[in-house]
Amino acid sequence: MNYHSKSADELRATQEDLRKLYDALCAAGLSLDLTRGKPAPEQLDLSNELLSLPGADFRAADGTDTRNYGGLRGLPELREIFGEIFAVDPANLIAYGNASLEIMHHLTTFGLLRGTVDSSQPWSSGPVKFLCPVPGYDRHFAITEQYGIEMVPVPINPDGPDVDACAALTAADPTIKGMWAVPTYSNPTGVTFSEEVTEGLLSMPAADDFRIYWDNAYAVHTLVDEPPTPLPVIEMAAAAGNPNRVYVLGSTSKITFAGAGVSFFGSSKANVDWFVENIGFATIGPDKVNQLRHARFFGDAAGVRAHMARHRDILAPKFATVLGILEDRLAESKVASWSEPEGGYFINLDVPDGAASRTIALAKDAGIALTPAGSTFPYKNDPHDRNIRLAPTFPSIDDLKVAMDGVATCVLLAATETLLSAHGS
Amino acid sequence: MNYHSKSADELRATQEDLRKLYDALCAAGLSLDLTRGKPAPEQLDLSNELLSLPGADFRAADGTDTRNYGGLRGLPELREIFGEIFAVDPANLIAYGNASLEIMHHLTTFGLLRGTVDSSQPWSSGPVKFLCPVPGYDRHFAITEQYGIEMVPVPINPDGPDVDACAALTAADPTIKGMWAVPTYSNPTGVTFSEEVTEGLLSMPAADDFRIYWDNAYAVHTLVDEPPTPLPVIEMAAAAGNPNRVYVLGSTSKITFAGAGVSFFGSSKANVDWFVENIGFATIGPDKVNQLRHARFFGDAAGVRAHMARHRDILAPKFATVLGILEDRLAESKVASWSEPEGGYFINLDVPDGAASRTIALAKDAGIALTPAGSTFPYKNDPHDRNIRLAPTFPSIDDLKVAMDGVATCVLLAATETLLSAHGS
Repeated sequence: MNYHSKSADELRATQEDLRKLYDALCAAGLSLDLTRGKPAPEQLDLSNELLSLPGADFRAADGTDTRNYGGLRGLPELREIFGEIFAVDPANLIAYGNASLEIMHHLTTFGLLRGTVDSSQPWSSGPVKFLCPVPGYDRHFAITEQYGIEMVPVPINPDGPDVDACAALTAADPTIKGMWAVPTYSNPTGVTFSEEVTEGLLSMPAADDFRIYWDNAYAVHTLVDEPPTPLPVIEMAAAAGNPNRVYVLGSTSKITFAGAGVSFFGSSKANVDWFVENIGFATIGPDKVNQLRHARFFGDAAGVRAHMARHRDILAPKFATVLGILEDRLAESKVASWSEPEGGYFINLDVPDGAASRTIALAKDAGIALTPAGSTFPYKNDPHDRNIRLAPTFPSIDDLKVAMDGVATCVLLAATETLLSAHGS
Repeated sequence: MNYHSKSADELRATQEDLRKLYDALCAAGLSLDLTRGKPAPEQLDLSNELLSLPGADFRAADGTDTRNYGGLRGLPELREIFGEIFAVDPANLIAYGNASLEIMHHLTTFGLLRGTVDSSQPWSSGPVKFLCPVPGYDRHFAITEQYGIEMVPVPINPDGPDVDACAALTAADPTIKGMWAVPTYSNPTGVTFSEEVTEGLLSMPAADDFRIYWDNAYAVHTLVDEPPTPLPVIEMAAAAGNPNRVYVLGSTSKITFAGAGVSFFGSSKANVDWFVENIGFATIGPDKVNQLRHARFFGDAAGVRAHMARHRDILAPKFATVLGILEDRLAESKVASWSEPEGGYFINLDVPDGAASRTIALAKDAGIALTPAGSTFPYKNDPHDRNIRLAPTFPSIDDLKVAMDGVATCVLLAATETLLSAHGS
């Protein structure tokens, strides 16, 4: 029954039942974790061939000895494969280290200390702001917070960030230098940006050195038969007259090994040359042996997609399990809504305003770790205290069932508290 | 015969002979490279076992799944091995990515944008200077130049940097925030810092947030039976009352694969915790699979030393070849002096003042690439234009013989020009 239709007495009775369920949950002594978007061991097993690659032949296709120094742009054969995946000309795609986050961090510190190719001075010579579609990715927001960049939240719609809201801000404020974006199966909403929204973001008026960090972390991480085709955003940005606006980022962290993959950076020729020049002060070159390992493992872009189909076989039942329990336990109550993502690593759960931190605290006391309240917002501040990010990939299906059933109990219990408090009781 | 004793006519006759040798050299159509400290292919072959490691067992000694995210400090068993190599408590030694240069770059940008644990404000809120023992490592100087840090040259003696000169500067100028140092078989001089010099650097008066980048790149890269024992500089700094003064850096780049090794950072607990906190904004963790690969390959610190003995078997004859040719061709003339290093990757050659760039240009026209003139000095400015860095590791012995014989001819020819010009002819 819809909790909103219940009288205070009915809510109190419901709460009493839920409290019993919750006490039983606590008594079970669980220790389950739904916090981070980590691949499960069986997903990592799909790439175990990498553990003995490349084998005796250490030469790249062009004869390069991958063991030695050099090659700042990364291995051409791997850039070829992922150029297709990210819809970026391989000539303007760089293969780097094991973490696209490190590239984003470098891009930000380079911007602050030196400025971009279109900056008249380093970003740090004045105030700097970034647009942050919310809810979004906590590690993005952490970089900007760390360096004192003011984060300006913008709403995200089912087809991507609200372009009108973004454009109104960037047109009026040249200190807005950046924007975080996860264009495919966004973290945590699961939203994929439409072509129209993408065009809007690429063409809206903004400072010359405004940059969109196009973190295509889930480009091929689909749960459905027909994943979205990646948009050629570099070319689209050029066509819109803003050739240097977009930094494309991605990695194999959730394709092969989360800690031992390869990251990528793609952009205009000017931006890529700038990045290579700047990164040349920090490294003599990336780990080309690991890049060769990956190129041999995949063969081609079709090999990447075939590999992702095997991930889907593991992940789809986990997402279905979580969604099934949310439906069974929460649908009727009308106190929560959630995303039904077609890919990515998260399910986005919204509970009644003011009930997220209480739900998370209840779950924690029952031994179920959820991402801390507010994590999906800049400064960890969810203004409505309603957003909870669920990460279903790492636990086993059995653990997921137990954890999600517990979470549902916590959501309902917290909701009764919120509603009763609204009843003034 | 000593060129300095020759008359102008004798010098002209000598020059004519050298010019014939040089013309023959040019006619040979060489293409040889003595520029960079790269390992030779046969050195890289010593580590080819890594190409199929770790194999099926991907678990660290403590059971960690190395394939997944996490572990910002790196794999304990690898830190244990290299803690002994660098004389740093493994608890305060971090294993990171494939390039210690990237750690140095991060340390510098963290200092500039955020400040150190002992800074009252970010370095970038005022002028920043670094001490630079000269001649030194071009990639060090490149980082400081890139970020507008003023480089102050200090002389390097046979036992290390001139402590009195350093102390006079740091005592007087609190904007000196850093110092580059290569304590073992220094690049390019081959100098190893004595314990006395080390103590002097660790105890001299300086700003609270003055840091020595202790780049122990050649800690075990010896050409002799008894390499220097690494000094426990973290403990020595603490004993001197400056516990956070020293950042220890190193890597396996010239131990295993130059492009696919593991880098290390060691310091006081406060500095390491600070670094881990800061680096956590750039990465979720290093490539632990590569760290496991290395730990399995070495087994222990003795395994590292045994491995370095095999490098020595390859490198010692190359260094002997270069030194032999320098002796045979240049000793009598007294126009050049050179280091006879007991380890490291370079031989340091000093030619008459004003003759280095001419020597390098002559060699270039003869198809022999030498490190550009001035590279071993801040701002590429060798005030005496006399220093040439020779890198004997990469070429074959046959190539080295040809290249060095050619270099000797260029040195002598340039010297005759310089001396004749001094004769006023």
